[in-house]
Amino acid sequence: MNYKMMGRFLAQILSIEGIFMIPALCISLYCGDSMAVKGFVCTLLIIAALAAVLFLVCRGAPSAFYAKEGLVCVGASWFVLSLVGCLPFWISREIPSYVDAFFEIVSGFTTTGASILTNVEALSNGILYWRSFSHWLGGMGVLVFLLTFTGEKGQGFTMHLLRAESPGPNVGKLVPKMRTTAAILYIIYIVMTIINIILLVIGDMPLLEALCTAFGTAGTGGLAIKNDSMVRYSPYLQNVTTVFMILFGVNFSCYYLLLIKEWKSVIRDEELRLYFGIILVSILLIALNIRSLYPTLEETIRHAAFQVGSIITTTGYATTDFDLWPSFSKTILMCLMVVGACAGSTGGGLKVARLLLLMKGLRRNIRQMLNPRKVEVVRNNGAVVDEKILDNTNAYLAAYVIILFAVFAIISLDGFSIGTNFSAVLCTFNNIGPGMEAVGPMCNFSAFSDLSKLVLSWAMLAGRLEIFPILVLFSRRTWQQK
Amino acid sequence: MNYKMMGRFLAQILSIEGIFMIPALCISLYCGDSMAVKGFVCTLLIIAALAAVLFLVCRGAPSAFYAKEGLVCVGASWFVLSLVGCLPFWISREIPSYVDAFFEIVSGFTTTGASILTNVEALSNGILYWRSFSHWLGGMGVLVFLLTFTGEKGQGFTMHLLRAESPGPNVGKLVPKMRTTAAILYIIYIVMTIINIILLVIGDMPLLEALCTAFGTAGTGGLAIKNDSMVRYSPYLQNVTTVFMILFGVNFSCYYLLLIKEWKSVIRDEELRLYFGIILVSILLIALNIRSLYPTLEETIRHAAFQVGSIITTTGYATTDFDLWPSFSKTILMCLMVVGACAGSTGGGLKVARLLLLMKGLRRNIRQMLNPRKVEVVRNNGAVVDEKILDNTNAYLAAYVIILFAVFAIISLDGFSIGTNFSAVLCTFNNIGPGMEAVGPMCNFSAFSDLSKLVLSWAMLAGRLEIFPILVLFSRRTWQQK
Repeated sequence: MNYKMMGRFLAQILSIEGIFMIPALCISLYCGDSMAVKGFVCTLLIIAALAAVLFLVCRGAPSAFYAKEGLVCVGASWFVLSLVGCLPFWISREIPSYVDAFFEIVSGFTTTGASILTNVEALSNGILYWRSFSHWLGGMGVLVFLLTFTGEKGQGFTMHLLRAESPGPNVGKLVPKMRTTAAILYIIYIVMTIINIILLVIGDMPLLEALCTAFGTAGTGGLAIKNDSMVRYSPYLQNVTTVFMILFGVNFSCYYLLLIKEWKSVIRDEELRLYFGIILVSILLIALNIRSLYPTLEETIRHAAFQVGSIITTTGYATTDFDLWPSFSKTILMCLMVVGACAGSTGGGLKVARLLLLMKGLRRNIRQMLNPRKVEVVRNNGAVVDEKILDNTNAYLAAYVIILFAVFAIISLDGFSIGTNFSAVLCTFNNIGPGMEAVGPMCNFSAFSDLSKLVLSWAMLAGRLEIFPILVLFSRRTWQQK
Repeated sequence: MNYKMMGRFLAQILSIEGIFMIPALCISLYCGDSMAVKGFVCTLLIIAALAAVLFLVCRGAPSAFYAKEGLVCVGASWFVLSLVGCLPFWISREIPSYVDAFFEIVSGFTTTGASILTNVEALSNGILYWRSFSHWLGGMGVLVFLLTFTGEKGQGFTMHLLRAESPGPNVGKLVPKMRTTAAILYIIYIVMTIINIILLVIGDMPLLEALCTAFGTAGTGGLAIKNDSMVRYSPYLQNVTTVFMILFGVNFSCYYLLLIKEWKSVIRDEELRLYFGIILVSILLIALNIRSLYPTLEETIRHAAFQVGSIITTTGYATTDFDLWPSFSKTILMCLMVVGACAGSTGGGLKVARLLLLMKGLRRNIRQMLNPRKVEVVRNNGAVVDEKILDNTNAYLAAYVIILFAVFAIISLDGFSIGTNFSAVLCTFNNIGPGMEAVGPMCNFSAFSDLSKLVLSWAMLAGRLEIFPILVLFSRRTWQQK
């Protein structure tokens, strides 16, 4: 294990976090919230001290860097980012418990959007901004940002880290250089976020709210800045958010392909088709099921579309208390929680691409059973899928199911109902946010014990980083020196 | 597709079913239940007519028989067995709805033990006997019985059918001839059932009740003959049942190995160790969790052990209403529902052997990520596991999860709570029986709609036959003629 290089890398990550904290500090200064200012200043000093020590200790690191270091770096960075990132909440006393503050920032970075706050509107503006900005940063990946816009060297280095941090079964390159690929994706992300902010401001949303809402939409996070999420916003603002949530759930490579006018590849993309197919069918089924609950057809479809977009992209905003919907609609939403958004988007969940691979792998298996002598391959968008990717997808599902049930068992110690616990696990592990029953869209996670909050935080990190970077941190082999 | 051979095979299966119905008819005659006698006689006449027609039409079938035919035969036989097997319930008017009768017999043959009856004790003795005997027949597999004890020819034929009907990821041979293997397993099954009956009778259980209870234990079925399952039986009878449920959840090959004095292989068997490990840990955790609910330690442990044994072996008897237990204990039981018993036993679920393979495959995957250049293999009991088996295990999990959520969505149309629906799916698909909340151990499935009952019946069949024989029935390729 190349500890020195990891240390230097953590120092850089912490510095980036500090730099991104400065706008929040400025907002707090401007609004005159002295406790929030104290929180940010203290955190920045702690970051400076930590980074300085790490830089000094880890000078002259050897440049050997393998897949193992990539996985460990990603897992460790996200833990450290969260441990430090929650300090402003805690020091400012706006979230008095450190465990709660940690849960909240993990929920932010992992773009989950589950909150322990019973009254969000009591937070000061700077803290609100930092809380929502964590979504934006976590959505595309903070390590990707570092590698793209700072001068970290080494192709292999970038590659291993990107592979470990980016969502989806197979991270492809758009252009020969991995770093250029990452830069293109980040620029698309920034431009789309800006368009979203402008459209929200046009709809008369105050600027800070527009920023926070757009950060939550872009990162498919969903930490709301109102106690009732997006219920009180105008239909226009709700519809804009619906569209952008769904857009941010699309594989960003598709946007690049659109930019270079590869229309055909986009239209023929199997994952994209399945993604929009699932969305349309779900909206239709839910709209039929809840038609009697709302006065007009427009309102029915608006709420159905918003909630479907919010859940499948794992954002977690709500325009209505869907926990009051009939069982059938709630169950469809729970299925969408598991499916998740497209690979290579900012959304979480199992990913549509994985679902596609699992279904194709299954079909191949059935065909092979019917005709054992014929060799069948799995194709995606016409190209043969490497058996290793299929193998990894299957291992991913196994890890997913085992973790799901383990976390489900641990949090049941708090004694909530099966529906509450199961949906709490689904919606943290899949980085969605609100669940059903006691953790429904109009409720929050404050009632859970500290143990459950920590376990659910772990589940959020495991979900966001697609399990393996977090699992290897707990593997004995990782820490064995040869 | 070799339709003629399939037809002849179905005729044989129906004949076997008819023969096994005769003891039930005798009981009904002895007790003088004229409606039940009518039910059995009519059914026997229908069976005779159907079998005669099939034998006549399918004379001179070609002997070509491949894996595809094996899968289809198994799937189709189980459907036909159930369609005909439920006729006595329906014709005798003891279960007035055909869908309900079908659900009940599918629950019997698949050894699920979920019931739609609100008052079991109102059934006549002959019907009760047939209902419980279906567990015994379904537990080991009725096709296996046919192939073992009648003169069906062809090694490949036997092989393909056994592979498709027997539970577990890998069907091994104990002796060179597959049919002898099956005969050995069936004899062990019969002897163990007889010992169980004797021990129950010694404990003062009436003979018919002892027969029915032992059939349900041996097949790990769990259709109770009392409205409150086994609550009112003495601690001795409950403990005997606990021990036998756990014994019938063991891979039957282990008993053969004990008979030929291969002690070491049994003690070192990884699946067996994990199975008993899970049982012990679960009993311990639940006993600690429910200690305050029962007056004595003996009673606490007795109930914990009975329920753990009942759920992990997917039997489904109950000595207490575990739906009233704290969430933690209920969640452990739900996790055990998924795990299931050992491969090669009469129990259902995912099977301990599959869990072991999934965990080992996962560990291999993590190791490979840490060190991409080293080739890692998965070992079971010291021997390298074929990649094809790993592949099948993974495909199985994918099919399992997809079906789980699909059935969950369909039955939610009835509007029950998430906890009810989720546990209803888990406990039918894993062939357990009672679930939680509205389908808890002291409740039943009568409130579901006919659609849900049919879908749940399908799930029970898919669970018992390990998905693929049922899935291929719905695959277009199966029915294509080349």
